[in-house]
Order: sequence, then C-alpha cells, then structure tokens
Amino acid sequence: MKLTVYLAGQIHDNWRDEVAKRAEEKNLPLTFVSPQTNHDRSDSIGEAILGEQPGKLYKDDVASDINNFRTQVLMQKSDIVIALFGEKYKQWNTAMDASTAIAMNKPTIIIRPESLIHPLKELSNKANVTVETVDQALDVIGYIYE
Amino acid sequence: MKLTVYLAGQIHDNWRDEVAKRAEEKNLPLTFVSPQTNHDRSDSIGEAILGEQPGKLYKDDVASDINNFRTQVLMQKSDIVIALFGEKYKQWNTAMDASTAIAMNKPTIIIRPESLIHPLKELSNKANVTVETVDQALDVIGYIYE
Amino acid sequence: MKLTVYLAGQIHDNWRDEVAKRAEEKNLPLTFVSPQTNHDRSDSIGEAILGEQPGKLYKDDVASDINNFRTQVLMQKSDIVIALFGEKYKQWNTAMDASTAIAMNKPTIIIRPESLIHPLKELSNKANVTVETVDQALDVIGYIYE
Amino acid sequence: MKLTVYLAGQIHDNWRDEVAKRAEEKNLPLTFVSPQTNHDRSDSIGEAILGEQPGKLYKDDVASDINNFRTQVLMQKSDIVIALFGEKYKQWNTAMDASTAIAMNKPTIIIRPESLIHPLKELSNKANVTVETVDQALDVIGYIYE
Amino acid sequence: MKLTVYLAGQIHDNWRDEVAKRAEEKNLPLTFVSPQTNHDRSDSIGEAILGEQPGKLYKDDVASDINNFRTQVLMQKSDIVIALFGEKYKQWNTAMDASTAIAMNKPTIIIRPESLIHPLKELSNKANVTVETVDQALDVIGYIYE
Amino acid sequence: MKLTVYLAGQIHDNWRDEVAKRAEEKNLPLTFVSPQTNHDRSDSIGEAILGEQPGKLYKDDVASDINNFRTQVLMQKSDIVIALFGEKYKQWNTAMDASTAIAMNKPTIIIRPESLIHPLKELSNKANVTVETVDQALDVIGYIYE
Amino acid sequence: MKLTVYLAGQIHDNWRDEVAKRAEEKNLPLTFVSPQTNHDRSDSIGEAILGEQPGKLYKDDVASDINNFRTQVLMQKSDIVIALFGEKYKQWNTAMDASTAIAMNKPTIIIRPESLIHPLKELSNKANVTVETVDQALDVIGYIYE
Amino acid sequence: MKLTVYLAGQIHDNWRDEVAKRAEEKNLPLTFVSPQTNHDRSDSIGEAILGEQPGKLYKDDVASDINNFRTQVLMQKSDIVIALFGEKYKQWNTAMDASTAIAMNKPTIIIRPESLIHPLKELSNKANVTVETVDQALDVIGYIYE
Repeated sequence: MKLTVYLAGQIHDNWRDEVAKRAEEKNLPLTFVSPQTNHDRSDSIGEAILGEQPGKLYKDDVASDINNFRTQVLMQKSDIVIALFGEKYKQWNTAMDASTAIAMNKPTIIIRPESLIHPLKELSNKANVTVETVDQALDVIGYIYE
Repeated sequence: MKLTVYLAGQIHDNWRDEVAKRAEEKNLPLTFVSPQTNHDRSDSIGEAILGEQPGKLYKDDVASDINNFRTQVLMQKSDIVIALFGEKYKQWNTAMDASTAIAMNKPTIIIRPESLIHPLKELSNKANVTVETVDQALDVIGYIYE
Repeated sequence: MKLTVYLAGQIHDNWRDEVAKRAEEKNLPLTFVSPQTNHDRSDSIGEAILGEQPGKLYKDDVASDINNFRTQVLMQKSDIVIALFGEKYKQWNTAMDASTAIAMNKPTIIIRPESLIHPLKELSNKANVTVETVDQALDVIGYIYE
Repeated sequence: MKLTVYLAGQIHDNWRDEVAKRAEEKNLPLTFVSPQTNHDRSDSIGEAILGEQPGKLYKDDVASDINNFRTQVLMQKSDIVIALFGEKYKQWNTAMDASTAIAMNKPTIIIRPESLIHPLKELSNKANVTVETVDQALDVIGYIYE
Repeated sequence: MKLTVYLAGQIHDNWRDEVAKRAEEKNLPLTFVSPQTNHDRSDSIGEAILGEQPGKLYKDDVASDINNFRTQVLMQKSDIVIALFGEKYKQWNTAMDASTAIAMNKPTIIIRPESLIHPLKELSNKANVTVETVDQALDVIGYIYE
Repeated sequence: MKLTVYLAGQIHDNWRDEVAKRAEEKNLPLTFVSPQTNHDRSDSIGEAILGEQPGKLYKDDVASDINNFRTQVLMQKSDIVIALFGEKYKQWNTAMDASTAIAMNKPTIIIRPESLIHPLKELSNKANVTVETVDQALDVIGYIYE
Repeated sequence: MKLTVYLAGQIHDNWRDEVAKRAEEKNLPLTFVSPQTNHDRSDSIGEAILGEQPGKLYKDDVASDINNFRTQVLMQKSDIVIALFGEKYKQWNTAMDASTAIAMNKPTIIIRPESLIHPLKELSNKANVTVETVDQALDVIGYIYE
Repeated sequence: MKLTVYLAGQIHDNWRDEVAKRAEEKNLPLTFVSPQTNHDRSDSIGEAILGEQPGKLYKDDVASDINNFRTQVLMQKSDIVIALFGEKYKQWNTAMDASTAIAMNKPTIIIRPESLIHPLKELSNKANVTVETVDQALDVIGYIYE
C-alpha cells in the first residue's frame, strides 16, 4: 500500500532529503510532497507570476496566494502529514499546516526538539504522535507496514 | 503526480486549446475537463435528448439539467478549477462554477482582465489566486511541481 | 417557526425594503439579513478600516475581505436565501452568493426577469425555485406556513 | 442578532478586556469566550485535576488535554473567531486556533502588528480579514450590524 | 427538551391530527411539521405562484420546486422524522423523505402495516425503528423523555 | 475517464443488460454495478447466510441487512447513479437508492415512463435529469465524453 | 452559557445522580441527558412497544432499535459527552457511545478506574480527557466557566 | 472491483489468517489490513520508538498514540470493516473500531458468538450485518460480487 506524506515545516535546511533517504533505506513505499523549499522562490513567487507589487505587504500577499494554493492541492492528495518544528524561526506555517491537517482528519506526526515541549503542548496533544527525530517519525509510519 | 483541472468559463472561443497547448509545452502532467464547448450543442442538448419543448424557458431548463449533470460529474473528479472571465457575456455559469468549486474546497484560480477587477472583487477574494492570463494560471499550477 | 432569510442581489435600489414590507403585510415571521446595501460604504469599507491602499486593486481587495466576512457570518445564520437578478450590472456577487448557498444546502429562491431566462438557466436549474417577482418569492416562503 | 466571538491569542496581558470594553462602547451585542487567561492556571490545570505528574512533558500533556477540551467546546459555540498575534512569545496556540477555525469555516479575523506581516503571510491570506488593532477588528464585526 | 418532528407520508387523510392529539394526551413537548397536506393545493401550488404551464409535466415540475423547497426548510429544522406508509398510493415521496432523513442522520421512525413488510424491508432496515401504529411511534419518542 | 455507474431499479427483467449493451455500442468507458438482480437470491440471501428465521418479518430483515450492505459498498464506489422506475411493483428500493444518491451528491438520472410523471414529480425534480428510455440515459452520460 | 452533557455508561447504579448533585453544588449550568437508566425497561422496551418477539435475539434487536434511536436524538443535542467505565460488565455500549461522540467531534471525557488503564488505552487516547472520578470530570467542565 | 477490508478485533489468535485463506479459496479480490497483531509489539511500540516512560499509564499512552495513528491511516483506506468479538478479553478496541467505522459510513460486519448477543445488541443493531463465523462474513462480502 503506497502512501503519500506531506512534509510541513521550515525550509531553511534539507531535512526533507534526510526523510526521503531514510524512507528509502527502510524500504517504505512513500511519496513525499511539501511546500516550496526554495526560500527565495517561496517569497518571490507572487511577484514572479503577477508582477511587481506596491510594497512588502502586497508582495507577501500574492506569494501567499500561490503558496497556499500549492499546499491545498498537495495536502488534499496526502494520506499522512509530518510537521517538523525546530528551535529557530516563528514557524507559524508549520503550526497552520499541522492544525489544518488535524482538522481535515489527516493522521499527523509532529517532530520537535525537547526544548519545544512546552510551547507546542496543545498542538502536540491534538496530533496523533509527537516525536523528536526524523527517524522516529519514519518508524511510526513504518509500523503501519509491519 | 497527475492532476485533473476543470476549465470553467465562456465557450465562445478556443481558450481551452491554448491552455492545453501551453500545459504541454511546460510538460505539466495535467488532464483538462470542461463544460460542453460547442455553444449550439450546449443550448440544444436538452431537446436533442428529451425532444421538443413547449417554449424557450422549457428548452433552456432541460438543457441545464444535462449541462449541470456533466459539470457535477467532472468537477467532482477534478483536483483544481480554473475559471476564466472575459469582457463579453454575462458569464454567470463561470461565477457559479467558481463559487461551487470554492465551496467544495477545490483549489481555484480565476483568470480575468484588469477591467474586471472591480465587479469580480469578492469572488477573486475567495478564490486562491487571481491572474490575468492563461500563462500565469499554468505557472501557478506549474509551481506545484517545482 | 421563525426563519432568517438572506437577501442576495444588487444594492442599487431598495428592493429589500419592498421584500420586508410585503413580508410584514403577509404576517410572515421572517428576519431579513443582507450584504451592505450602501454601495459607497461597501466599496470603501476596506480603506475605512484598514487605511488608504496603493491602488484600486488593493482598495477592492480589502473591501472584499470585509464584505465576504459579513456575508459568511450572515449566510451561516440563515435558513433560506433569496437571490435577485436584474437587467443591469454584472451581478457576479449575486451569482456567487446563490451558488454558495446551494452548495451549503441552503434552500434557495432566485428572482429574475423573463429576459434573463437564458443566461441564468444553469443556476436557476440548481436553485430550488425561480420566480419573477418579490411577491412570488414571498408566496413561496409563505407556503411553508400554510 | 447576537453573536459569540472566540478570542484566541496570548494570555499575558488583558487585551480581551479591551475588546469587551470597546464592544460595549460600540453597543455591539457580542458574547466573548476565550481560552483560560490565567497563565499559571492554564499551565497547572492538568495537575490540579489529575494529580502530580512524573515530569514536565507529562504535566504539559495533561494540561493540554483540558485546555484543548475547553477550546473545542467554546469554538464550536462561536460564530466568529478573532486571533491576536503580538511580537512576543511563540504563539503556536494562536496559530493553531486560527487555522482550526478557518478549517471549520468559522469567519476569522487576525490582529497582528506590521512587524509580523511576513511570518504570518500565509495564515493572514487564509483568514477573512487581517487588521492591526482591536478597534479595527471590532469595526469589522460592527460592519455586520450596519 | 423540546423536539421538532417532521411527519412524512400520504396526505389523503388526517393521520397527522391523530399524531398531534396523541402527543398532547401523552404530554410530549413536540412540534410537528409536514409537507403541504391539502392535496389540491400541493398539486397546484406551482401554477398558483408561477402561472399556467404548458402541460401536466410542467405543472408538476413547478409544483415540485415549491414542495421540495418547503420540505428542505422544514426537515433541516427537525430533530426526528416519522414516515408513515399505508396500503394505498405509490408513496414515493414518503420513501424519498425517509431516505433523505436517514442520509442526513436524522433519527427516523417508519410506520407501516404488516402487509408492507416485504416491499419496505430495505428501507425499514435503514430506519432506526419500524412500527405499525401512530401510538407506537409516539411511544418510541416518549421513551426519550423517560 | 472511466466512470462507475450504479443501476438502481427493479430486478424483474434484464434492463441492465440492455444498458450494458447500448453503452458498449456507444463505446462509453463505463463500469456498471447494481443490487442483486436474482430476485429469489435477493429475498433469501439472509437465510442462506444466517440460517432459517422465525417468520417472514425476520427473514426479510436479515436479507435487507445484506442487500443494504451490498448497495452501500457499491454506491460509495460509483460516480453516477441511474434509477429506473417502471409501471409495476412498488419500487420503494428504487426511490430509496435514488434519494440516497442525491443526498450523497451523486449525479443522478431517473428513467421513468410518461405515466409516472405525477407520482415521481418531487423525486424527478431533485434528480439531475429525468428521461424515459435507457438510450436517453446513456446519451446523457455520453454527453460527458463529447 | 448553558451546556448539555450526555452521560454514557453503565446503568446499574445511580452514578448519574451523583454527577447531577455535584454539578448543582458547583453551580454549573448543565443539563444532563443519558440512555434509559432503568435496566429492565431498557431490555424490554422493544417488546413493550412492538409486542412479543420469537426469541432472545429478536427481543434484543427491537430493544436496540429504540435504545439507539434515543441515544442518537440526545447525543445530537449534546455539547459534551462523559463516558464512565467501571470494573464490572462488558460496557460495549459505553465504548460505542464514546467512540461515536469522538467521531462526531463532540468534546469527550472518559471516567475510568486505574485498573482499566490498559484495556482502555486507545480509547482514552482518542478522548479529550481521561479522569478517575465524577468530581474530576465536573472540574474539567467547570474549567470552561472560569 | 478490488476492495480493502479492515479486520478489527482481538489479536490473541490467528483468525485473520483464516479470513485471508477463506477469501483466497472463494477467489474474492480483497486486500486485508488490520491493527498490529503481535500483542507484545502493540503494547511496547510506544517505548520502542519514544524510549522508556515513567510508568504504565505513560507507556500505554505512547503505545496508543502509534496504534491509533496506524488504525486511522488504514481505516481511511478501507472500503469495508469486519469487527470480530470473542468470548475472552474486554475488546474495547474492537467496539471502538466498529463504532468509528459506522460513524464514518464504512459498511461494517460484526462477527460474534451467540453468547454475546445481549451485550452487543446495540452495536450489532448499528452495524450493517452481524454474523457468527468468519465464513459467513466472507459470504456477505462475496455477495457483492455475485
């Protein structure tokens, strides 16, 4: 049984490659989808398609139109959502994607370091499972195939 | 990941062919579906199947039965809806299809010329993205595959 | 049994007052809600609350945020939607409100002149009832109380 | 028409009292509900009811059980959600509540300072309206009653 | 706890009065709603509001628009549906109302004579309870108040 | 685009074979599913699996368990429902299946002879299209592929 | 804000009276509803209304029709569900009611003794909160009103 | 037409192998999925992935996170649910899975011995079909393919 997994979370390092590599090592038949992971592209996509905007608010709003469009298409196609939180950045998109997934009844795993237990406690409580590493998240998914 | 795209909008020129051609040039794995694009066929389909009706109201109503049936089947099968508005025609079907798609949580792109910004402002605001050209709409969809 | 009725449609004349007056004459226990009917207020509400915007597109978009907010609150509170179409104006908001109501399973009545039978045929076909006058629409609602 | 408004956001100052006071000044018939606003009580409610837990993770998890229970009851009873973001704190609960409200089709207003435009851009884009002050949020709600 | 009960079924005798009388004798706090019970009115309501139609098919269709509108409004307001089948008439509206109620998760009671066990067996099986008399149906509802 | 069509209706003659044959002649890529069409098997399936029952009511109820199970599985898998009514039999299952399909937003076609216009008028009005022959129903579906 | 609470669980002692008494002492504005708590009445209600059945299986099935009807009506009217598990009895109805409530997004509290931690672990994990005493459950609800 | 069947029930013997074997003998094109059937693995999966916990309650809760995650993924992928009850064990997970499936509109078969008729009567009444043996359950599914 093939499953599609949406990888929500920051786009400042290549953690998604790590996920894909470990999934392959574990022979899990998973397809991964995600938000745009090129940060500059994600910020500028609105102006790239719709042209220059009259200020940062407007540039951000048109970029968001298109980023949200992408996320909605891909999350509707997904069977599982993994949301990774790290110690840097505000990560409100990660919280938004995880919360939306939970409200859509998508089975959801949160990955977060121990240092974030307290500020993420209500969201962790609503997700199915909260773990600390990518490996643990894939072990949770791998458990489906045992 | 293959996606099915419903192309709502006027059926007086061949803009859908343009969409398909540009999608092919961009190598996007999209399947396009749409309302009946032969205008006469669309208007006469009710009488063609159900026989002559006692007046225009009744002719229109039986045609609508069958046009709405087609749209409902195809929109339920679609992952994305593009709705194109032009400067001519009332285009209430385009507004109806876009609004229905949004209410069904289908990710939706509106294409409209600058001249229609004002009368379409509330509908544009509810759609995911509003652009001015077919090319821009396909760039938005292409962004999913980056 | 009291019912709340959302009155979608153009805001260029006082047809809603006529609806309310006739409902009172017929002793129907209805509460009417509607979009903002002051046209200037509707167009300028975005800038009135959020401040001047850098152009018409942006002015329209912030106005739409707030008009759509109002409509969403009031339509969710309504038991019935009446959508009136006239011969003037594009009336895409009317088409949007009627289509959204139908998609939300709100019982919906369309009022339109005979001249609009053809361009509204698919939307009329999806609504519960299509009539030509305010009086007929209230007779349809009055029938619930017989 | 009375409306119930859920006030999501940080619980470190009395901004909700300000909201209630301004609503009263504007004669808006609103009932406000919210998460527990006593921060210590919110953190300790789990142990207060369920007894001492074997560590911070567990203390947080039982508190979250009860905080999430409260939020679910009250948000289901609400017609509108206001989510206020400030410059301090991680505010993932605010993002979670706003995202959940949007996914539940609750009309949603975000209040955030200009400095947070960029990190909140996707969430703002999904909310109905984004403003910068409590007063603006109440003006948006007041517009329903015009 | 007051409950609203939709009474689906034939409109050729006054069985609904019997239901109301027995509910009153049992002191059950129920409000009853129903389709139009004046048979002529039900058949002619379309032409009464929309004017003469060009034939029986069209007369029936406009009557159905308005009868279905009424039923949709009242069934959405109901907590319980009772559907009574008798030995005469085709009663496809009764089957339609019962099936729609079940699909909407409305708790549903069917009343039918012993002679109809076989042709109603699949519908009875999907309803919550099937009884043979009005009194039994009210006993089932009365059980809620014990 | 392959579509699955549920064929609701009486099981006393081989009309479904006619549908399949005509669909093949028209080269429509349709898969047909249906209730059990062997009437004796349909009536006795409960006792065949669960053993002899203490009377006709109980025999019918266990058969209905299994017939409803089959219909629920197959209708959930279907994109379109055709419901055929004829002049004989009570056909409450046909009415039940058509009404359930409509409530599930399955695009629905009713086939009925002219003689049944009046008793089926409300159900016809809720279906997408009503026709008189199998050929017309397939023409409606064929229109999707034009 | 008044709330209605469904009390699922065994009907062999008067624990619901205890809940009501403690709620009154705490001045909580709660209305309690529940399954039939007279065990004999619950078992015999089917035969009481529908007459003697041909065996225990059939007696149980008709009683269940009516008990499930009652539960469906009352749970749909409830804002919160409390499900109490004790050390005796199989309590599959309690598990069914709690699971149904959770699937309906009703905020749910489980009360169970420490001895049942293990066999209830998956269900506890899906409920909002799990406590050991009636008092704790009311403290959780009381927290909504702080 | 291939169908996926979730097999809920105790994990103390190999009844699922029996189901698969009989399905193969009957040539039914079914794919079976299930909870983790290795009992020790199911109990220890939480600690295996998340590390040692401070007590049995906590060990059980982390195991439940992951078991519920697995069940949610697999049940969403299933077309049919079979829930088997035996005479031993509390089997609250079986009741939970069956109740959840029914609330999700998954067609559901219960297998239980005659001795459990009474305690399972309400749940049996809500399921589509209740049988006593694995063979009967497969006959019910096989009936779809006749």
